[in-house]
Amino acid sequence: MQKGTDFLYLQLADKIAQLIEKGVYAVGDRLPSVRELRQEHGVSISTALQVYAQLEKKGWITARERSGYFVQPNPRQRAQLPAVTAPAAAPVAVKVNEQVRRIREGRRQKGLVALDAATPAAALMPQHKLHKAMLHAIRRHSASCVPYHDVSGYEPLQRLIAQRSLTWKDAVTAADVTITNGCLEAVSLCLRAVARPGDTIAIESPTFFGLLMTIESLGMKALEIATDPVTGICLDKLENAFRKKKAAACLLVSNYNNPLGSCMPPAHKQALAQLLQRYQVPLVEDDAFGDLHHGPDRPDNIKTYDSEGLVLLCSSFSKSLAPGYRLGWAIAGRYRHKVEQLKFMTSIHTSLMPQLAIHSYLEHQRLDLHLKQLRHALALQTQQMANAIQQYFPAHTRITRPEGSFNLWVELGPHTDAWELYRLAMEQRIAIMPGTLFSSQPRYRNCLRISAGLPFNEDMAWAVQTVGRLAKRMN
Amino acid sequence: MQKGTDFLYLQLADKIAQLIEKGVYAVGDRLPSVRELRQEHGVSISTALQVYAQLEKKGWITARERSGYFVQPNPRQRAQLPAVTAPAAAPVAVKVNEQVRRIREGRRQKGLVALDAATPAAALMPQHKLHKAMLHAIRRHSASCVPYHDVSGYEPLQRLIAQRSLTWKDAVTAADVTITNGCLEAVSLCLRAVARPGDTIAIESPTFFGLLMTIESLGMKALEIATDPVTGICLDKLENAFRKKKAAACLLVSNYNNPLGSCMPPAHKQALAQLLQRYQVPLVEDDAFGDLHHGPDRPDNIKTYDSEGLVLLCSSFSKSLAPGYRLGWAIAGRYRHKVEQLKFMTSIHTSLMPQLAIHSYLEHQRLDLHLKQLRHALALQTQQMANAIQQYFPAHTRITRPEGSFNLWVELGPHTDAWELYRLAMEQRIAIMPGTLFSSQPRYRNCLRISAGLPFNEDMAWAVQTVGRLAKRMN
Repeated sequence: MQKGTDFLYLQLADKIAQLIEKGVYAVGDRLPSVRELRQEHGVSISTALQVYAQLEKKGWITARERSGYFVQPNPRQRAQLPAVTAPAAAPVAVKVNEQVRRIREGRRQKGLVALDAATPAAALMPQHKLHKAMLHAIRRHSASCVPYHDVSGYEPLQRLIAQRSLTWKDAVTAADVTITNGCLEAVSLCLRAVARPGDTIAIESPTFFGLLMTIESLGMKALEIATDPVTGICLDKLENAFRKKKAAACLLVSNYNNPLGSCMPPAHKQALAQLLQRYQVPLVEDDAFGDLHHGPDRPDNIKTYDSEGLVLLCSSFSKSLAPGYRLGWAIAGRYRHKVEQLKFMTSIHTSLMPQLAIHSYLEHQRLDLHLKQLRHALALQTQQMANAIQQYFPAHTRITRPEGSFNLWVELGPHTDAWELYRLAMEQRIAIMPGTLFSSQPRYRNCLRISAGLPFNEDMAWAVQTVGRLAKRMN
Repeated sequence: MQKGTDFLYLQLADKIAQLIEKGVYAVGDRLPSVRELRQEHGVSISTALQVYAQLEKKGWITARERSGYFVQPNPRQRAQLPAVTAPAAAPVAVKVNEQVRRIREGRRQKGLVALDAATPAAALMPQHKLHKAMLHAIRRHSASCVPYHDVSGYEPLQRLIAQRSLTWKDAVTAADVTITNGCLEAVSLCLRAVARPGDTIAIESPTFFGLLMTIESLGMKALEIATDPVTGICLDKLENAFRKKKAAACLLVSNYNNPLGSCMPPAHKQALAQLLQRYQVPLVEDDAFGDLHHGPDRPDNIKTYDSEGLVLLCSSFSKSLAPGYRLGWAIAGRYRHKVEQLKFMTSIHTSLMPQLAIHSYLEHQRLDLHLKQLRHALALQTQQMANAIQQYFPAHTRITRPEGSFNLWVELGPHTDAWELYRLAMEQRIAIMPGTLFSSQPRYRNCLRISAGLPFNEDMAWAVQTVGRLAKRMN
């Protein structure tokens, strides 16, 4: 313990940490507000703020936007983070298709307990308000939906999306936005705009299998780059690949990478934007999860620092509003015309109906309020899931601590075969996602992605407990 | 003239032909009905039917489903058909992208007179009934639109589409139908399912540039096959390519090929199905125009005769109901799972909203009545456009006589440069489509596609006259 009144805030922080350790405050509980702390302990506002800043720094609590401070699992006993990944440094042809087919086949069964729900529960989406928005749009504009429409999208919606770029190095206009059938189509079009079959794409390791499948289906190769579970892709390794002209382009999820949950710090993003410019390598930046930050502030994008149009930003409303609408977009910088051309020859244009509905929602409803609720729910669910995994999985299990979205990357003992665990879990009607799906290389055999898109309930707790028991038996 | 009363019908037919030649009946006029003919001339019903059959055979008139008999342009003076095409017999990389970009750029101008409208006018679509269907669907099912949905589509809609296969050699079920973002996405997915970058696709010559662009964007090569403007692709030439293993797959528009308007006779379709089986070559059959037959009967498909699942049938509601809904489908036979997988990794699934709306329309409205009206309008517009071209274009101009859809292929004198004509026409704010867009080879420089999707009015007549005058000057 520190000494002297100068360190009052440290004394107070330590006292609260002890209360947490003794279980007076349980994981997930809200601590007294700053105002309450001030009143209870007769300290100044600034000291109270210092107390919480210290506790946060030490990992005891987490701040949630406008909600207060919440107890985290004991940092002294918390599961270790997975190590920085170390994929082989050679481009390879991707072959995850067959694995994905197997997963989708299994997923057809009814009544599974989903520890793999990589999309927020429908109940977390503003279904009623979307319904109203849809009716409003259809009543006013249904005739516009009938004829062919402009390839790039519904202009008022493009404009609303472009408005997000206000703080970017190069702000974009409506015409820079191409509306697509979801983020995956946007990524696919952008990849085709910057690379050809046979070309190599630098990616994070592990990477979402949907992105791997896209690379696979385009006949491109993947070059996996070492990735830190907290700060994302290792820039020195990536620069090395650029220097050796190993990659025609990059494809990254800079915010809350799926499955790692890593989020590149602003300085990394800025540095990467500079690397892209130095080596003239285009980057497809998938930002599907950027709106799902658990903390108060939205992370920025690599695109934010892009002054040469080398970053093709892709995102969608699939994780924030309505997955089933299949609405995404690409802001493709200097590749905009090429992306539009590819969009035209792939699907002419995106159906107008969902565009009108989303536009009407954004015009008449408060997206920010919805997102706030959604983020709180996802942060809570993710924390609950992480806690359960820590409680029930083998002691050596490593777990990521994402600061956004709802995916957890779980590293089991080196001899655990996640596909065998998958098979045993499916016998218990529990769905999990084996780690090998997330690599073009024979990697992550002992890893799982566990997703917390659904509310954490007793079934979930039972499922985590069951999978943990199965994993323990396999060691 | 024939002699004797046995040939009464021939005498009567000849008399009517003379009346047409003298202008008593003008092009497009309806002739007396069979009943009226019987009464006026005191002949039997069967003789009256023979009269019209004879006139139709000789090209004087055309029968339109439930509407009667209509006067055609004088067959003795009618423009010649273009010859069977004769493309080079080597696979080539496709490069039409730049031309299409130029056309799309020009098309951005407002106030053009469109001789290139390759989609039926919005007013020909059942906009009000679609609006009702949409509202009905949204009121009942809007919540279903929010979460992710099944990759293959909305099952009740898949079922309605599958019902069209009742008369096929192998009837299909709902599960065989994959709903896509329009026909072009279906074609793109199917091509990717049967061929890889670098592979060669056998196609008709000329072929719709959208299909060429798809081949181009997938890094495949095109092998153009000689095509007859009436009966479609030349089967002996195609078999030759199969025998020499020149093509990994075929891609054909068997009904009313865009731009030629050719329609393969049933015997050709059956023979081609057998060829596919003999050589085990898959065929992507684009049937986007099949519902737009001008005569009473819908043509069948090559898929109709496919008993081995080698034909991947693609179609859409874009030409028959609502282009802007972007709704199509693939019935991919033995490649179904592969197409579904590709669909999943391209756009996850098709937006549910337009699927619900079309399903509700098909459930509650009479598609057959709408199609009948649409077909009559398109048949009339196409005839009017053809007549105007014949009247105003240079005398040696060759014009196709499609029996469905609304595209005309116009062959000008051998020294006419259609791109120069395009440029001159654009100066007059008239949009036409140069022939080189429809080939992977440097062909059809003196050809145009003129499309009659819009009602034929005075502006159109002026535009045809103007382009005709420009073409005459270029000779």
